[in-house]
Amino acid sequence: MQASQKIGVFDSGVGGLTVMKALMQRLPAEDLVYLGDTARVPYGTKSAEVVTRYSLLNARFLLKHDVKAIVIACNTASAASLPVLESEIPVPVVGVIGPGALAAARATKSGRVGVIGTQGTIRSEAYQRALREARPDVNVVARACPLFVPLAEEGWTEGGDEVVNAVAKRYLADLSGGEIDTLVLGCTHYPLLREAIARVMGSTVTLVDSADATAEAVESLLRGRGLIRASGQGSHRYFVTDLPERFAEVGARFLGRKVEGAEQVDL
Amino acid sequence: MQASQKIGVFDSGVGGLTVMKALMQRLPAEDLVYLGDTARVPYGTKSAEVVTRYSLLNARFLLKHDVKAIVIACNTASAASLPVLESEIPVPVVGVIGPGALAAARATKSGRVGVIGTQGTIRSEAYQRALREARPDVNVVARACPLFVPLAEEGWTEGGDEVVNAVAKRYLADLSGGEIDTLVLGCTHYPLLREAIARVMGSTVTLVDSADATAEAVESLLRGRGLIRASGQGSHRYFVTDLPERFAEVGARFLGRKVEGAEQVDL
Repeated sequence: MQASQKIGVFDSGVGGLTVMKALMQRLPAEDLVYLGDTARVPYGTKSAEVVTRYSLLNARFLLKHDVKAIVIACNTASAASLPVLESEIPVPVVGVIGPGALAAARATKSGRVGVIGTQGTIRSEAYQRALREARPDVNVVARACPLFVPLAEEGWTEGGDEVVNAVAKRYLADLSGGEIDTLVLGCTHYPLLREAIARVMGSTVTLVDSADATAEAVESLLRGRGLIRASGQGSHRYFVTDLPERFAEVGARFLGRKVEGAEQVDL
Repeated sequence: MQASQKIGVFDSGVGGLTVMKALMQRLPAEDLVYLGDTARVPYGTKSAEVVTRYSLLNARFLLKHDVKAIVIACNTASAASLPVLESEIPVPVVGVIGPGALAAARATKSGRVGVIGTQGTIRSEAYQRALREARPDVNVVARACPLFVPLAEEGWTEGGDEVVNAVAKRYLADLSGGEIDTLVLGCTHYPLLREAIARVMGSTVTLVDSADATAEAVESLLRGRGLIRASGQGSHRYFVTDLPERFAEVGARFLGRKVEGAEQVDL
């Protein structure tokens, strides 16, 4: 039966679909089950305690769907609850912060790395710790950018958009101009604002998106345990905790394709 | 014992503190109990079904605190759940939409009224219905402004702020210039952005804030039932469903004074 097992992915809402997209591209044969906790979104402004309670509910729901691994496709939830999930959940759990931090530690030349994320992620200092573990001499500048999530969900993301540029400049201007050479997009919503962020930061700063790094980490985990599926076409199933319509509508921008057949569940 | 009863007030988070403030000013002798459902905030992007479930939890919590009336100090929750609460809760329930709509119907001369609010409030069409009930010939233009809530919580609210002005212009420019003569601020966060909204709308448009109208409605309800307290200094107690620190910090901007001694509860 092992060969039929799926990969479970959860997030507070639509943002984790950028991780889902990376998993689809890297592991096209795997069956993926996505849970977006849209009734409780966002996690970014909530306490670690509350976010951990919700993460456990999400992971236990995915366990009922025959999963061989769980991906926390949300920076805030990874920061708050990875250790608890690792101890409570009987399958391997992968968060987005470790892989993202490792990719940034490899990318930086100057050792000066910026991290942007939600208030919850930045306050947790999870990236700061993971970066220092990966490279002890690293110098980290961290900053919360609370308006980036609603901007991405509103769809005001074009690099030429007056609002997104003004917001990006407000948050980031003092990090450009040689202060850092690498910036971690520490929230799964932020890749949608990549163009505006890159415009403020300039061409000398490398932007690191955790989604690809996380998909790579999932691949090597499954490969190491002999759980990987090499052939066939994987299935993709979506669950949400609030009405599916808006999830499907906004989610398509994050997934880069239609979100098919999302089902509502009550956790 | 009746004389010792309190007024219960709930909201998804800090926004309802603008209503709390209006109640404190109009009814200084009343004991007020405020519940901010900060673990589940925001309600504005969630479905009516989910918001109603949370509203019932909130109202039942307040009932345990010896309340003689409950104020839904949240437009989204009023729009989604007032009828259900009126039938399920054994004390009078007052929402913010009826009083706000009535104030706007009285204020308009041209009969052309604008309403701005969260996606949930606008989609519900509750203001549109309440305005037409108050004045059948009214012409309503309604618009969701999702970025206004995070802007108010971020504190970027000054009339001269480049970001808030760009966002206000994007949402409202086509409503100015004679299209309407009255605009309802149909979300308890919006009074904080009053200056920027007024700048876009121009001096010929009256801005209606539901908080004062709601406090007036509560006063006349209590007076009508002989439940009003005329003398003494009322007490104010705050409960939240997530950590109290950020609530107190952001809430002070909404209440116009310090938020004293907020306690965390689990609903």
